[in-house]
Order: sequence, then C-alpha cells, then structure tokens
Amino acid sequence: MNSSYPSVLLENAVNEFAKLPGIGRKTALRLVLHLLRQDDSQIEDFARAIVTLKQEIKYCSCCHNISDSEVCSICSDKSRDASTICVVENIREVMAIENTIQFKGIYHVLGGIISPIDGIGPSDLQIASLEERVKSGEIKEVILALSATMEGDTTNFYIFRKLQPYDVKVSIIARGVSVGDEIEYADEVTLGRSILNRTPFDESYKMITR
Amino acid sequence: MNSSYPSVLLENAVNEFAKLPGIGRKTALRLVLHLLRQDDSQIEDFARAIVTLKQEIKYCSCCHNISDSEVCSICSDKSRDASTICVVENIREVMAIENTIQFKGIYHVLGGIISPIDGIGPSDLQIASLEERVKSGEIKEVILALSATMEGDTTNFYIFRKLQPYDVKVSIIARGVSVGDEIEYADEVTLGRSILNRTPFDESYKMITR
Repeated sequence: MNSSYPSVLLENAVNEFAKLPGIGRKTALRLVLHLLRQDDSQIEDFARAIVTLKQEIKYCSCCHNISDSEVCSICSDKSRDASTICVVENIREVMAIENTIQFKGIYHVLGGIISPIDGIGPSDLQIASLEERVKSGEIKEVILALSATMEGDTTNFYIFRKLQPYDVKVSIIARGVSVGDEIEYADEVTLGRSILNRTPFDESYKMITR
Repeated sequence: MNSSYPSVLLENAVNEFAKLPGIGRKTALRLVLHLLRQDDSQIEDFARAIVTLKQEIKYCSCCHNISDSEVCSICSDKSRDASTICVVENIREVMAIENTIQFKGIYHVLGGIISPIDGIGPSDLQIASLEERVKSGEIKEVILALSATMEGDTTNFYIFRKLQPYDVKVSIIARGVSVGDEIEYADEVTLGRSILNRTPFDESYKMITR
C-alpha cells in the first residue's frame, strides 16, 4: 500500500510504529487506529511507560541484566548459588531459563554475541566484566548458554579461551534431541551430538525423577 | 510464558504493548527491548507521535474521515464530484478505494457497522449525518461500500431504508468473482451473485480499456 495518508499526524505515528521489528505499514496503521480509539489517559499511559522505561531503567552492576535497582533481584538473592554463573546473550534468555526452575546460580548477560557481519566484536559485549568476576576467585563454574549458531559457537570459544588462565570449570549446555521429538525426524547434526554427549542412564533417570 | 520480569518498568511497558490488537506478551517484550536499544530522542519521537496524534487529530466535519484540518483534503478538492458519496466503514477503506484511482466522488465514514454483538447500534454511527447530507438535495448517488458480511448487509439495508424518502440513487459495490480468480475455486454464493449481477460484455470491455 503506497497510500497517501489523509493526515500528516497519522502518517507520523504510522511511521514510528513501522520502525519496530516485524511491524509493516499495514499493521502499524491498524495499531495506530486502535490507539486512536482509546481514551486520552490510556494513550498517555502507553507513551509514559516507554519513556519512563528508557529514562529510569538500570542495568545490574553485577550481571548487567535489566533491573530497577543497582543490583538485580537475582544477584541480590542470598539463597542462590553465587559461585555458578550462567552466561547468556540477553534478558530474554534469563527469563527463559528462570522459567525452567532448574537453575539456582546467577547470570551474566553479554548483551549480544560476537557477529562480524553485524559489526559486533568482543569489546562490544560484557566479556571483560565476566573475566573480572571470574578473576575474583569466587566463581567455581561458568555455564555457557548461548545460541547453537556459528556466532554462538564463536562467542563460546572466545570466552573459553579468555577464562582458561583461571581456576574455573567452563561447561556448555547440552545439545541433543528435544524432549518429545521423534528420533527419525531429528537432523543429523543434532542427533550426532546427542550420541556423542550421551549420559549414563541411571544419572539421567535420577535427574528427571528427583 | 508466565515469567516474572526482572524490572517493574519493563513489565509496565510490556503490558502496554500487549494491549494492542494481535500483540502477545512475547512480541511485546521483543518490541520493548528493541525500543530500549534506541537513542533517547528516538523513543521520545515515538511517544510524542502517538500523544500528538491523539491530541491534535481532527475529523472532517463533512465526511468524518481523519483529517489535519476542519474539512479533509478529499472533501475540499474542487475537482472531485461532490454529488456522489461513497459510504465506508473506516479510514482504511477510504485509503483502499483511493488506491484504486477509480473513484472521483467523495466519502462518508460511518465509523463502524451495525453489530448488535459488539453493542454497536445505528446511533453510534454517522448515519444521521449521512441523512443530513442527502437531505440537502445536492447528492445524486450514494454508493454503499461496506463489508460483505451479515453486519455489513444489515447496515446497508438500514441506510437504504433511511434514504428511501429522498430523491437519491442508492447503489452497492459489485459482488462477484475476484479478478484473477479461477471460476472452479470460487464459492457458490459469490459465483451465484456474479451471475445474477452480470454486465453486458461491451460495457464491461469499455470499462477496462478506457
């Protein structure tokens, strides 16, 4: 739709929405017209929520996750194991792992992964601060939980090399056939990895029943 | 995802985005995190575009379309045929019809269609003002261009009855097989209508070649 909008104000609002990822001009128009039907106060709430977020958001000084306070609620939780750090790309992975209720350690949010195509190098990420945390000597294990992509693997390897001088265990989350998947439909690479990384049956059985 | 967000500010922003139609909580989070990566000024532009739209938008006093001025650019265009009114549901239909470049008359935007389920009756729509426009005696034809649904048909019939006392031609846009569609795949109702509403070949031929 290469339409001429009947109003410049409308066109501006549509343009702003269309800048968001995955939102085309048609969807943007639908969203804007929806907002236009709401009360003034609702529109102001919407606009204020975004501006306030940007102005007042903090990043945890320890793990660099998004936070309302200087140190985030996970890092300041005394019941968690502060000697195990799970390295993730972004806040969304923190939320996904928290949802599993399987991890009792703390996090380190890199803020992305190494991606030469997008111009993201190691210095753009929170890798130096991870090294600092490990250097303190209080960390026993670093678990790498990055995407199973080439960029993820590159970043894993870079971090592994950086942490090699220190007395810390570096592990990586298991790659294998998804729970619920049928073997015949799994791709060869994943299936191959799941065979190489096989676990003793009694260990695996204990894990799911405990 | 029934996640606990690491920040109340973040959760507020996600909640606001998730109120938009077709935006779930996962998409909302993705959009908010995208905005968070932008500059302060871009976020302010975004928020301002929406608030300004709501505060300053006008509705054309003639056709009730969204407009920046008292009378919209279509109604104030002297080259258009002001004696032919096309009745549509919303601004999106105005834009769709304008894109066809086939209509040289002006519009009347109802602001919705009669839908008892959604609690929308004739008095919630701009039907009385349409009657006023017709009553003025300057309108020769009213073209009904509403959705081909039960609600659309109800609204068409209601408007037709309201306009019967006046000396005005009331027509409805053609229903038939879409251009490019194969006959064997057209549904029976549409195909039946396209046979009933057949047009003389030479008229139809003239129409597409002129």
